[in-house]
Amino acid sequence: MVGITKANFEDVFPTVETAIRKAEFIALDAEFTGLQLNKQTKSTLFDTSEERYAKLRRTISNITICQIGVSAFVKDPDSENKYIAHTFNFYLYPPVFGPVDVRFTCQASSLRFLCKYNFDFNKFIYDGISYLNAEQEQQIQQYLDRKDLFQGVERDVDESAIQKLLSTVAEWMFGTETEKPLEIVKDDEDLLYTQDYILHSELRNRFPDIWTTIDKTKITIEKVGEEKRKSLEKEEVQSKEQQATLTQYVDGLTFYYDKFHKFLPRSYKEFKSEIHKLFPVIIDTKHITNSLRKPLEKTDLLKSTALGSLYEAFHSQKGQQYVIHTPSIALGPGCEHYLEAEFPHEAGFDSYMCGYVFLRIAHIETFRDILSTEVVPCSFRRYLHSTNEYANKINIIRANLNYLSLDCEDPVSERPDLLFVRSKKKSYKLEAGQIARWFSPYGSVDISLKGPNSALVATSHFGCARDILKNFKRHEKVAVSKYSVWKHSPVVRNVFIAGTLLSGGLCAWVLWSSRKQPA
Amino acid sequence: MVGITKANFEDVFPTVETAIRKAEFIALDAEFTGLQLNKQTKSTLFDTSEERYAKLRRTISNITICQIGVSAFVKDPDSENKYIAHTFNFYLYPPVFGPVDVRFTCQASSLRFLCKYNFDFNKFIYDGISYLNAEQEQQIQQYLDRKDLFQGVERDVDESAIQKLLSTVAEWMFGTETEKPLEIVKDDEDLLYTQDYILHSELRNRFPDIWTTIDKTKITIEKVGEEKRKSLEKEEVQSKEQQATLTQYVDGLTFYYDKFHKFLPRSYKEFKSEIHKLFPVIIDTKHITNSLRKPLEKTDLLKSTALGSLYEAFHSQKGQQYVIHTPSIALGPGCEHYLEAEFPHEAGFDSYMCGYVFLRIAHIETFRDILSTEVVPCSFRRYLHSTNEYANKINIIRANLNYLSLDCEDPVSERPDLLFVRSKKKSYKLEAGQIARWFSPYGSVDISLKGPNSALVATSHFGCARDILKNFKRHEKVAVSKYSVWKHSPVVRNVFIAGTLLSGGLCAWVLWSSRKQPA
Repeated sequence: MVGITKANFEDVFPTVETAIRKAEFIALDAEFTGLQLNKQTKSTLFDTSEERYAKLRRTISNITICQIGVSAFVKDPDSENKYIAHTFNFYLYPPVFGPVDVRFTCQASSLRFLCKYNFDFNKFIYDGISYLNAEQEQQIQQYLDRKDLFQGVERDVDESAIQKLLSTVAEWMFGTETEKPLEIVKDDEDLLYTQDYILHSELRNRFPDIWTTIDKTKITIEKVGEEKRKSLEKEEVQSKEQQATLTQYVDGLTFYYDKFHKFLPRSYKEFKSEIHKLFPVIIDTKHITNSLRKPLEKTDLLKSTALGSLYEAFHSQKGQQYVIHTPSIALGPGCEHYLEAEFPHEAGFDSYMCGYVFLRIAHIETFRDILSTEVVPCSFRRYLHSTNEYANKINIIRANLNYLSLDCEDPVSERPDLLFVRSKKKSYKLEAGQIARWFSPYGSVDISLKGPNSALVATSHFGCARDILKNFKRHEKVAVSKYSVWKHSPVVRNVFIAGTLLSGGLCAWVLWSSRKQPA
Repeated sequence: MVGITKANFEDVFPTVETAIRKAEFIALDAEFTGLQLNKQTKSTLFDTSEERYAKLRRTISNITICQIGVSAFVKDPDSENKYIAHTFNFYLYPPVFGPVDVRFTCQASSLRFLCKYNFDFNKFIYDGISYLNAEQEQQIQQYLDRKDLFQGVERDVDESAIQKLLSTVAEWMFGTETEKPLEIVKDDEDLLYTQDYILHSELRNRFPDIWTTIDKTKITIEKVGEEKRKSLEKEEVQSKEQQATLTQYVDGLTFYYDKFHKFLPRSYKEFKSEIHKLFPVIIDTKHITNSLRKPLEKTDLLKSTALGSLYEAFHSQKGQQYVIHTPSIALGPGCEHYLEAEFPHEAGFDSYMCGYVFLRIAHIETFRDILSTEVVPCSFRRYLHSTNEYANKINIIRANLNYLSLDCEDPVSERPDLLFVRSKKKSYKLEAGQIARWFSPYGSVDISLKGPNSALVATSHFGCARDILKNFKRHEKVAVSKYSVWKHSPVVRNVFIAGTLLSGGLCAWVLWSSRKQPA
């Protein structure tokens, strides 16, 4: 069931709902129009988790999701140890309706990256399903309740077409006796371009005793008298038709994804508690695979933690036979083509790979220290129990051991101390580029100049810091030392828990179905 | 010659250049990914021309042009009175190369608007020609000159793939004696995702005695020794190959449109003088048709000034025969399909319509008060002379008579006085929405609250202001009057020259070929 657009959304939705309700767990993936909004939102090794969240929030509220993949893993009722992955690949497009006209940022390199994987931008823009979060829905509701709210205050259209339209109607209103409605064909491109809600409110505002209906090609105006007009207005607001109009405009909305239920909160703490309420068990495949890399080293299955490589490893004969009684995983109806070819970075296929990898890993982890004679087919509940320590921890880019905890305080940093660099002669001015060229051969570094003669340097791992200290001991121009003020001030030191929350567009989550939770 | 993408750009470019060199004039049109960046950049009747320019500058620097249409109107050498319109429709896409990775904003409604006209977004993103302005070109040149400039300072990539790559190379460097180059296939998706320039600089920074070459599928590393390395670096910078690499990355760039020659200047005055230097004669078809509406009223050809309607009117038999000896206008090679169907809002077709309309109008205007017996086929120079008073004046949205002058001071405002609204009882608080609902039936208004009990209202035309004053004479809640402080202060009053410079995405220009000007 791949490629869900506004054309088939309503037909397909019941199938999606059923699969989600029946699922043991759901795997998600998304494709974004960008990863990094600008230089100010670039992640650095200096970021505190709060600062990082603020950067991500700014980025995420400006970019948009163009595709979302959902794989619902349902236990096969006819088989003891088999899951069926029902995969859905939604194209999404931001809503355009009345006062809601979303602006979103694209990063040129991100779209070109999607090109490598044959992303269909026409499907995204022509056929993407529109969705609203609660705030946008409220905005639209307000607009519908007070149809003229935006009249003259909120719009930015060329007036000439509207003035012409109003003159035509005025002429007809006062010049003719006929009761036959007036039909105005939208042949003028300015009229075609003007949104219907503006035409409605312009006309109805100007003439208190008319009624307007508008379709794709024409505007129809009837003389109705003020009394009738009032009752028609009431009817319009209350009637089902009104709802139908809304639905039509926002392209079959009703799709309402909980992650989008509000705009992201300012506070990092609030975000953590909110997301934890919505999704009580989140397993980040990036975090679980990073954590198990060492313990499962001898399996050779986790050599690369890139999603595609993981899928390949666990899909291989070796991966499937590493521990017996691993569940079989079948593709749901409509996904048979996933057997013939791989579709990396199609959100649907990525979500499928993500859930697939999780099941295989959970099985291996569950029976890690257990004799093979005692391995049995096993319930999903037991898998969840065995992987419990990895739940609700989100991997952080640019660090080997660090993660964020959604359900408790973030862990204490395991980052090396900051380095302090000063120039030996006052006349030698430090430059970030020069320091980067000196230090980066030893690993990843971020540099913050503190003045013309001093700088702080954050490094990503202990080996890097150690090598820099060692190799710059007798440097002719600069002295490098551990930054001891920071070292001895635990309050300040605490801020160095850097993290990329949700790890941008390449991250996939495994979500435990929230069906048992109250909405 | 429609649909120029990076695939055929280099083949087609000589044809484009020849057509432009031979042209009497060039007509332009462009399609944008948005028209209004956000609420802050919305145009209002209060804007001064400087404020309006600042708003447009912010919008234009954030959106991007996805398609540009160029029609070069060339006199047919074999015919006395005939032009051939060579139309080129370029798909453009912002550059991704080294430090240049453009972010651009899309307005959801603008892209949906393009959908109505079958815009191909895949062609835009997959095949769009990249272009650089001078500042971006300089940035890239600096990057190429100091390849490691951005090392550790400017990038934001997942380190694990790079760390793995570096380990592999280190192992090979120190573990093997062989002089055979090492080839690393880019099968890891993180490597595929990482831009080549980062891989180059990571590897070359870490290992001073290797040389790297990278293609689509693999990275090749040779041991070369430090001396050889230095000479290879020099060679790379100087050689033609270096230029070839640049060209390849930016997708066959060299296309360099003068309008993009720099980022827009902060100062409105500087912008005006700069654009006037680049394009000494600009004729805005919107301005000329608006200005000639009254004088040519009896022709019935200018009833609507929307580009499509104008083309239809002037393309009709009546439009072509209104004044004899109007030039015939033929389509250049590759544009024959424009005869069979119309392609509104394809930038190429719009630029063709724009130039077509200009020629027809220029002919009518040239012979407006001349006996038909004295009408003769006429040179383009004479057309330019007859339309001289309309040159370098840019139409302004939301006004009937106002325009901006590129080659002199802007004209004095012909806007009506501001209205001053105050509530009769202190307890009655004014609201912008309420005032808009009261006043907008009389015309377009913008409201600026000055406090809980007073507001200023700008109106678009005199009739509107007059009607409001008349109808609110005895209003129970508010008193409305002309705002006399402003009226009597010409210095302050002067600021009310509102304007939409360049009129956003629907505007088309006729440019006189700048071929006779020094570049």
